[in-house]
Parts: sequence; structure tokens; C-alpha cells
Amino acid sequence: MRHPSRIKIVEVGPRDGLQNEPRPVPVAVKVALIDRLTETGLAAIESGSFVSPKWVPQMAATNEVMAAITRRPGIAYPVLTPNLRGLEAALEARAEEVAVFAAASESFSQKNINCSIAESLDRFAPLTARARAEGLRVRGYVSCVLGCPYEGAIAPGAVAEVAGRLAAMGCYEISLGDTVGVGTPAKAQAMIDAVAARLPVEMLAAHFHDTYGQALANLLAVMERGVAVMDSSVAGLGGCPYAKGAAGNVASEDLVYMLNGMGIHTGVDLDKLIDAGTFICSALGRPTGSKVARARG
Amino acid sequence: MRHPSRIKIVEVGPRDGLQNEPRPVPVAVKVALIDRLTETGLAAIESGSFVSPKWVPQMAATNEVMAAITRRPGIAYPVLTPNLRGLEAALEARAEEVAVFAAASESFSQKNINCSIAESLDRFAPLTARARAEGLRVRGYVSCVLGCPYEGAIAPGAVAEVAGRLAAMGCYEISLGDTVGVGTPAKAQAMIDAVAARLPVEMLAAHFHDTYGQALANLLAVMERGVAVMDSSVAGLGGCPYAKGAAGNVASEDLVYMLNGMGIHTGVDLDKLIDAGTFICSALGRPTGSKVARARG
Repeated sequence: MRHPSRIKIVEVGPRDGLQNEPRPVPVAVKVALIDRLTETGLAAIESGSFVSPKWVPQMAATNEVMAAITRRPGIAYPVLTPNLRGLEAALEARAEEVAVFAAASESFSQKNINCSIAESLDRFAPLTARARAEGLRVRGYVSCVLGCPYEGAIAPGAVAEVAGRLAAMGCYEISLGDTVGVGTPAKAQAMIDAVAARLPVEMLAAHFHDTYGQALANLLAVMERGVAVMDSSVAGLGGCPYAKGAAGNVASEDLVYMLNGMGIHTGVDLDKLIDAGTFICSALGRPTGSKVARARG
Repeated sequence: MRHPSRIKIVEVGPRDGLQNEPRPVPVAVKVALIDRLTETGLAAIESGSFVSPKWVPQMAATNEVMAAITRRPGIAYPVLTPNLRGLEAALEARAEEVAVFAAASESFSQKNINCSIAESLDRFAPLTARARAEGLRVRGYVSCVLGCPYEGAIAPGAVAEVAGRLAAMGCYEISLGDTVGVGTPAKAQAMIDAVAARLPVEMLAAHFHDTYGQALANLLAVMERGVAVMDSSVAGLGGCPYAKGAAGNVASEDLVYMLNGMGIHTGVDLDKLIDAGTFICSALGRPTGSKVARARG
């Protein structure tokens, strides 16, 4: 099997995970979670989102979180910034990496961020320029890359188009999200093939939700195409409130277990990762979404 | 991605699933489940086990189940037979296919069937000969092919040796079981490579438990090696009472969803399969282990 010898894991639990909790999680709990994740050796920990608290109250205190966490050199703590106001807040919080969020589906873009794909890209262009001028890295997200809850199938070419536009703005990494988790391995590869025909595969990250239990198989499939960056959530936290039946991201523990078993380097300490998952599940009062954590527990 | 164009799914829920229930499931419920599974288009439905009710009370009424189900021509309804007495019972129940159960791990063989691997094979040889003389097909199982709860790692060569012995006896299909679900994709491929060096890959079935969430990724990996027979349990029923932390088999619904998405023919109607899972979960009073069923529900 062809696969990269190293995989960078981007932990998205504190943002993509906790933003979907019914109630905001206390700042102290978020900080404790992120600090525990820092101890695991993860390369990147998405730590919050500077969005309007009117829309996403779960992320309201991201400035407090960013001020309180212990940042370790060499680890990225990206935050989502939907607009210039969000970027200003991120700069104030001394973020070194921000992320912008576009969709490959027109209907999803309208429902999720209330504008067309083209409008969202027009909004991100000055944001990205400003962020780069300030010395920040910018990550681009594309959602619904393997299907949309409103439109169904999404053409790989549509994904490649949005990914290409984000890269042209200066995004250094493009995270391709199967937001509703409907993808299967051959479709995931076809989507990657379409995007990799336009951008270096080294720029691409796979962000797959496990709603239909396919995430790990899909990650294995895109690894064979050279994708070496993967987003995951500790304890399988997460989901999308606007996507019907969306479950959490693939569990970080289950991903690390697979990569360890394949001799692929991640730098992540699985035991510490399981501990971080146990901590947040206990704080939230819910069972873990990680089968590895359950088997070990 | 290389993969077979057709996959035969062997549904093992009524046996490998229900034998791990804390209490025996009523005959009428088992019959209703098997009859519903027959309607889905599955090629094979493992329907019970002629073992001593002292050891496995959950399977005590297999003769009643076999008498009551509606068998459809072209569908196999195999039963497990650990010894000649079990085979006699299977013949009396008009079984057309039986299965014998060996291990690739010496310790597991002792704990699970109370004899060495060599002793178990010596016991299966006359059983298999007798079954074939009666015109029955015999399926061979090898457990612990990717790890043992007592011994840890298992050498692929040990798996190939037991598989080869079962094939030499006349087993037409060898089901390779990751009983504890600890395997990962590259190890699954290496194990298949070792067995396929000795036997035609067409004879091999993959029987993977999902304890560590790896089953679907592992199935994808061995499909790339040409494995075209896969065991799974509706609703993810099952597990092994002697294997620490063993969860159920991979859920049939999640497997069919993946194969459908890849355009691989199984002949199985996913909606009817989900209905069969809903039925048995409701009868058992437990949530489904299938993410597809949960997402659709």
C-alpha cells in the first residue's frame, strides 16, 4: 500500500467539536482540554472561532481561551475567522494562524454562512491578504466536498474550483471536509484526484466526519493518493448543527491507532490523547465516540 | 484503487452476534431475524451453532431455528459444528453447510475450545470428511489472525499454516477472523499476503471485529488484495465473551453502504438490511451498532 511516512494531525475537537455542544463549555474546561492536547504531541490544535456570539454562542469566549492556554512553540493553535472583524479579534488574541470557511455547495453556503460561494470568497480575499500582511498563516476550509445535505452529490470539479480560489488567495493548506460524512473510499479518491490536478497534494488536508462510519476507510483511501494532513476530533466530538444527521469528526484516537499500526509517524502519544478524551467526556458527561478509548477503558 | 467488482457478504449476526447476548434470544425472534435477512438478498446467513448448550446456552435451540426458518434456494444457512456430534445434529437439521472453528493462537485455542490447535485440526479432519461425504460444504474459520488477547501479535505464517490445513481437509472457504479487532490496514494486508501465498485468494473471507474502529478500513485494505468475501453482523451484533474488550463484528449496513458507494455489487438491499437491524435491536432493547442505521433513523 502506498502511503505517506508521516501524517500531520490537526485536532479540531476544541472548535469543530465543542461548537456543536448544546451549551457553551466553560472557558476553564476548554483551556484544560487544549493544554492536555498540547501535551500529546499534536502538531495543530484548532482552538476556537471568532464568530458572532449571536450565531455561535459556544465560541463566544475564544479570546479568553486564547489568553489562558499554554502555547508551545512549534504547535499551531488556529482559530476560525469568518470576516475582517473576526481577524481583528484573532490578531488581538495573538493568533498565529487563522482559518476561513467556504463550501463546495451553493445551498450549504447560503444556509451555513448566509452568502453565495462567490460572495464568501470575495469576503475572504481581503481577510487573507490582511492576515498574511500581519505574518499569519491562513488555512482554507471547503465543506461538503463529498456531498451536501441539500444538494446531494457534489461534483469534484466544484471542490477543485473553490480549493483553487482559496489557494490563490494565499491559504497554505486546504482542508477538504466531508461535512455530512456520506463519502465512500472511491469517491474520496476521485475528489482528491480532482483537487490534486490543480494544487500540490501536500497542501491538502482531509476532514472527514464519521456519520456513516466511513471516515477511517476514506482517510486510508486518500492516504494512498498522498494526502498527509488529517483533521480529527478527540473522542469523536463534533458535528454540524445545520447538516441532517451529522455525527462527529473521526475520533483522533482511532486515527492515531490506525497510523501507529501502519508504522506511520504522527508524533502523537496515544495514551495521553486517550486521557485528554476521557477528561472532556467526563466534563461533558457523555460517552466517548472513540472505539479505541472504549476498548482501552 | 484495485478491488473486486462483486463482494459476497456472509451475515454472521444470528450466530456470532446472538451467541454473545447475555441471555438466549427466543427461537421466534431468531427465526424472524433470519427470515428478514433472507429478504435482503444476502448470499449467506450463518444461522446457529450445534455446540453443547452447557458451553453456549445461547445456541441451544439451533435445531428449532433451522426447522422454522424459510430457506430460499441459492442462499446458504451455515451452522457451526465443533465435533462429530454437532455434525450429526446439523445433518438431522438438514443443514447444507457447516463450519469448523480453529485458532491461529495456541493460547486462544486452549481457552476458547479447550484443546491445542493441532488437536482441533485432528478433530475437524474426520468431521470434514464425513460432512463432504454427505454432500455438505464446509467452511473453515481461523480466529485471532491479527492478534490474540493472550499472546499479542500473531505471525502471518501461523495463520497461513492453519488456513492451509483447513483447506487441505476440504474446507471450500477460509474465514480469517480478527477476533479482538486489533488489526490495522497494513497488517491485514500482510496477513492476507501470507495466506494467499498458500491458497487462492478467492477462497479467503475477511471476518473483522470493530473493537478498535478499524474494521471497515481493514476490509478496504484486503479488498485491494482481492479478498471478495466478507463476514459482517447486522446492527454490529456480536463479539467474543473470551476476548477482552471485544466488540461486535463490523456492521453489515456500514459495509454495504461502503460497497454501494464504490459501485461494488453485493446483491443486498440496504433498506431491508436496515429494517432487519431495527427489528433485532428493538427485540433486544439495545441501540444499533451501525452508524448508517443511526444516520438514516
